[in-house]
Amino acid sequence: MSATWGNKLKMTVFGESHSAGIGVVLDGVPAGVKLDLDFIKSEMARRAPNGGEFSTPRKEGDEFEILCGVMDGVAEGTPICAVIRNTNTKSSDYAQLKDIMRPSHADYGYRVKYDGNNDYRGGGASSGRLTAPIVFAGAVAKQLLEAKGIEVVSHISSIGKVKDKKFGVSITAEEINALRGAVLPLLDKSKDEEIRRVIAEARADGDSVGGVIECAVTGIKAGLGDPMFDSIESVLSSLLFSVPAVKGVEFGSGYAMTEERGSVVNDSWYFDENGRINTRTNNNGGVLGGITTGMPVVFNVAVKPTASIFKEQDTVNVATGENVKLSLKGRHDPCIVVRALSVIEAVAALAIYQFVGE
Amino acid sequence: MSATWGNKLKMTVFGESHSAGIGVVLDGVPAGVKLDLDFIKSEMARRAPNGGEFSTPRKEGDEFEILCGVMDGVAEGTPICAVIRNTNTKSSDYAQLKDIMRPSHADYGYRVKYDGNNDYRGGGASSGRLTAPIVFAGAVAKQLLEAKGIEVVSHISSIGKVKDKKFGVSITAEEINALRGAVLPLLDKSKDEEIRRVIAEARADGDSVGGVIECAVTGIKAGLGDPMFDSIESVLSSLLFSVPAVKGVEFGSGYAMTEERGSVVNDSWYFDENGRINTRTNNNGGVLGGITTGMPVVFNVAVKPTASIFKEQDTVNVATGENVKLSLKGRHDPCIVVRALSVIEAVAALAIYQFVGE
Amino acid sequence: MSATWGNKLKMTVFGESHSAGIGVVLDGVPAGVKLDLDFIKSEMARRAPNGGEFSTPRKEGDEFEILCGVMDGVAEGTPICAVIRNTNTKSSDYAQLKDIMRPSHADYGYRVKYDGNNDYRGGGASSGRLTAPIVFAGAVAKQLLEAKGIEVVSHISSIGKVKDKKFGVSITAEEINALRGAVLPLLDKSKDEEIRRVIAEARADGDSVGGVIECAVTGIKAGLGDPMFDSIESVLSSLLFSVPAVKGVEFGSGYAMTEERGSVVNDSWYFDENGRINTRTNNNGGVLGGITTGMPVVFNVAVKPTASIFKEQDTVNVATGENVKLSLKGRHDPCIVVRALSVIEAVAALAIYQFVGE
Amino acid sequence: MSATWGNKLKMTVFGESHSAGIGVVLDGVPAGVKLDLDFIKSEMARRAPNGGEFSTPRKEGDEFEILCGVMDGVAEGTPICAVIRNTNTKSSDYAQLKDIMRPSHADYGYRVKYDGNNDYRGGGASSGRLTAPIVFAGAVAKQLLEAKGIEVVSHISSIGKVKDKKFGVSITAEEINALRGAVLPLLDKSKDEEIRRVIAEARADGDSVGGVIECAVTGIKAGLGDPMFDSIESVLSSLLFSVPAVKGVEFGSGYAMTEERGSVVNDSWYFDENGRINTRTNNNGGVLGGITTGMPVVFNVAVKPTASIFKEQDTVNVATGENVKLSLKGRHDPCIVVRALSVIEAVAALAIYQFVGE
Repeated sequence: MSATWGNKLKMTVFGESHSAGIGVVLDGVPAGVKLDLDFIKSEMARRAPNGGEFSTPRKEGDEFEILCGVMDGVAEGTPICAVIRNTNTKSSDYAQLKDIMRPSHADYGYRVKYDGNNDYRGGGASSGRLTAPIVFAGAVAKQLLEAKGIEVVSHISSIGKVKDKKFGVSITAEEINALRGAVLPLLDKSKDEEIRRVIAEARADGDSVGGVIECAVTGIKAGLGDPMFDSIESVLSSLLFSVPAVKGVEFGSGYAMTEERGSVVNDSWYFDENGRINTRTNNNGGVLGGITTGMPVVFNVAVKPTASIFKEQDTVNVATGENVKLSLKGRHDPCIVVRALSVIEAVAALAIYQFVGE
Repeated sequence: MSATWGNKLKMTVFGESHSAGIGVVLDGVPAGVKLDLDFIKSEMARRAPNGGEFSTPRKEGDEFEILCGVMDGVAEGTPICAVIRNTNTKSSDYAQLKDIMRPSHADYGYRVKYDGNNDYRGGGASSGRLTAPIVFAGAVAKQLLEAKGIEVVSHISSIGKVKDKKFGVSITAEEINALRGAVLPLLDKSKDEEIRRVIAEARADGDSVGGVIECAVTGIKAGLGDPMFDSIESVLSSLLFSVPAVKGVEFGSGYAMTEERGSVVNDSWYFDENGRINTRTNNNGGVLGGITTGMPVVFNVAVKPTASIFKEQDTVNVATGENVKLSLKGRHDPCIVVRALSVIEAVAALAIYQFVGE
Repeated sequence: MSATWGNKLKMTVFGESHSAGIGVVLDGVPAGVKLDLDFIKSEMARRAPNGGEFSTPRKEGDEFEILCGVMDGVAEGTPICAVIRNTNTKSSDYAQLKDIMRPSHADYGYRVKYDGNNDYRGGGASSGRLTAPIVFAGAVAKQLLEAKGIEVVSHISSIGKVKDKKFGVSITAEEINALRGAVLPLLDKSKDEEIRRVIAEARADGDSVGGVIECAVTGIKAGLGDPMFDSIESVLSSLLFSVPAVKGVEFGSGYAMTEERGSVVNDSWYFDENGRINTRTNNNGGVLGGITTGMPVVFNVAVKPTASIFKEQDTVNVATGENVKLSLKGRHDPCIVVRALSVIEAVAALAIYQFVGE
Repeated sequence: MSATWGNKLKMTVFGESHSAGIGVVLDGVPAGVKLDLDFIKSEMARRAPNGGEFSTPRKEGDEFEILCGVMDGVAEGTPICAVIRNTNTKSSDYAQLKDIMRPSHADYGYRVKYDGNNDYRGGGASSGRLTAPIVFAGAVAKQLLEAKGIEVVSHISSIGKVKDKKFGVSITAEEINALRGAVLPLLDKSKDEEIRRVIAEARADGDSVGGVIECAVTGIKAGLGDPMFDSIESVLSSLLFSVPAVKGVEFGSGYAMTEERGSVVNDSWYFDENGRINTRTNNNGGVLGGITTGMPVVFNVAVKPTASIFKEQDTVNVATGENVKLSLKGRHDPCIVVRALSVIEAVAALAIYQFVGE
């Protein structure tokens, strides 16, 4: 363990893919805040599987019940518990997987850790399904941030080898709105078709493809973050790496900076005409020494290709001790990146609220 | 804040670049462990500035005094406090920097956060000097890990655009020993000369250069790590991003995986001839679903070019409200990567001990 | 906040007296433990209201649903969430209490803290009802402790001015069994009748009465507890004072020791015939310097009289700004002490597990 | 462990009675606060041994060095580390005590916990000397509280069987000032002589005597404290029980309330002539349901007689396995209560700051 995270907002996530239910306890929502339940539902719909080629903004999603902490739509200040029932869980599909370890899945590590007592059906507690309660919590955090003028927005930075543009030094309200309205949020819309094709081809091949999500937090003031161990980057990365399939995190220009000289990538300060302090570039992604600079906080995450593929793979049967072949069946996403946008934004919102919350 | 980190080993770091002293309180070292003070000193010497072209294994370093927690060289079980006095601090060099914000340094964020009361001399609490007590703590953690058969080792993965090889699927004792004995730890020794030249050129130009450090933890069992929020990757990345100049973290193949299909990068399981379960590749860096697989835990970090350069830069004077030019003086490392190896290993050791410690 | 407590076992409690449900997330139950659901139910029945003169061991109680973390009755190692639906909540009874602050209840402090947004019905989140999920968690902890030979047992030390005996230096299995089988757990059974009368008289008068619960933890080894801030006494007292109506905590002889000289109350050590180290007295309640001595850990808690009484009381209407009279209606316990035994044992079990758990 | 406590102010205490030094790292002091070093010294002098019949306000005390976190007397916002060197430690006095367990001291528990590696000299880490850094931290907290109009004050409630008065419902500035100026802080000064005699007699007999300290926090608003597990009482009691020799904690009337009926001890609310809400009595010590009521927070602690006495006692030699006689030598306080006043106030200040700090 730990299933509990946070300080200003403390969230505790519970459940498994095929348990009776999953959910979250969210402690610290300020009393008196009117929760925008429609917004929460729409955020959860962005994440939910929907049968399309990838996630679409259709407003359908996991239905949640709020057990406590909210009265007449208003936060009471006490813990909010939201429960999502698991339905349509065809556990029988997973019977063959009890002893056969799916490659690049958590099956084997979990089996060792829990001595075989973990619920292996659908990945159990390691399932991407557990990001649903996180999106619930993140939607609340987003709402709290918006009241402070802080926006969290993301786009597909790449799918496979097809790359979108990167965020610029400043990010406009128009860009934010355009990304939010898009089925496939891209800064360079000309890449839309190519990305659809890459995903469709992976699907047709019974295979999967990965990608990169770039996320920005705008409207954030300078001076936030806590040295040494609660730096903006520490808190954000810690949560980002809790999201299944994330294998890399960069702030600003990240690895690209390592190839350059300081004189090229240092972000020069200047006073603009309004007397506001800015940097001419934002290679550091809005964070220096773990503290915000007042520029947008920009980071991206590497999302590996969906581990579940239909192609035959080599693996082991830990019960028999044999090397075996495995061909997965059922429904699998050929590309998890589109659905993951809402999850990355959710944890970004939760992480940032840690520094600006009451 | 927070200056305190950890659970099994809890470390609290204090001090500023020009304060009377800096240090660490390390709580949780098991009673009865004989501390290898020579090893601690040699680790600190790897990190300490030494006037060479980059850090060498010369056994000189920050001298520490252990105030408590150790009796006759043996850990008592109670907190260990080690203090390093700051000497040779030419604070006058920094007088001009009180109001002039060094580009890509934490100066401005700190000034806003602490309302101008922070010690700006030498970067104050944001100084890389604060990694010295972390290396002290990491050296203790390394010693505790070694008693459990766990090794932490790193190499220079790249400096500027010059790239070393990556760790292979398995990492041998010979490789580990070779890296530990090297002034410039590289897997591909043929890159030694080129890397020295890149650093020397940056120095000659009054400029700096970045790089990537790849680190591996070997001898680690499957089943370690805690879902959801204390995954191996979450805990490691959180500490790694506390290290100044780190701007990216990848596990295993990281971003490279996002360009490939699942069928290409999924790590296949197999029983080897000894009945041990392995993967044929280690693209996931020894971690799946936040839990160790039993393969080496492999990650790398992006270290940006040293922010301090002698070349003239644009910046601001926050007292006068003017845009100004800045030319830094004094001693600066043209490349921090070599000295940072010991720091990355230190935080890796501390993070991993969290999962295997008593 | 915080609704989350603990380390080895981490519990997160949620809900209000009149919300849809209340419950607990319990993280850290070791994988593979077969949960004794009947035992959990019987513990919850000890706490549940039952209409008798005080709590009886009738096996009726709050019905809970386990949403996750348990498969085929066995703990999976992942978080267990148990939900108890609130039923038979006559919220209308409480309409008059929205603005009238019940004396010695949390109403006013909560109203100020949550700016009037808290659910005031039935005391909301401050209701004693929230101890039900704690008893669930405590029952699990008790089961884990019993597997280690550790027993938690309590008795009524006093009701009003009627006093039971105190635990002796050693506590036998017979005493433990006798207390567990009793409707009114007393060491001196001769006080049974008098105590029943005191409670009955308070009830007849529309009044209430307090008491003291003495609790012991047996089978506990020496050397447990963590200086400085996680002493046995610190951790236990912190949880004990989370229980509504607890206003005092003593370890061993507590306040009585302050009236004596050291030579009288110091606990002398001796080797017994089996070479085991004991103390001749246990005035320190099994804890010295925050660490267990190997003697039973003994403490007691002061439980104030139930705040809810039928007698007319002076108070305020915060909406009108007037001083008013209040006569409460409905069902109220004349003495909460008997039901509180299971709660005190539950938190004791949770606190002690912190020091002996995996 | 844990040697670290807190949230708004996080303190980490280190050291042993005979180590090179002891000290504290205090993280979270707001940047820009001018530290009143004279006040800190005077608080430490209240606690320090001074050779008198009990502690006097002579301004002598443990000398501390501030290593970092303060520049020109002003808090920088980063961690403050204060170190106190141990001097005049006659370790040879303790050679006989290595294997002989002092009754009612932590010796045996520590020896078991740390497997004999703990520094036994002078009680090592369990020594009352470790309260010196806590008083340092508490003095800072007091200063921060005073800026918010919050005062922490205490008096001797009893020594042996001699009892002072209790605090009334309201506590005046005059009372606070009188207590602060007194060598022996009593509400009923007529008890001064009797208390001196009780202590002197204990000293003359080579014995010791205990007592009770009552402490009040005034100027505190309603609505502070966090359900469930960070109630005012939980946080306060947790810290209070970290203080050596404390064996009981009561809030308000505590145990006395358990003997009364609800109608007698319930605290009635009323609006006073200024429209302020008060209670006519304060039996609940300013806390209901874990939340402040706006009345003074009042609690008391039981301090057992000093465990070290000169009279011969029975105990064990754990090395030889024999029951032995022990006669302690050296300097010992016949009554620790007077010196403990500053420690109790210190932890009260730290605990309360948790709820009002930035």
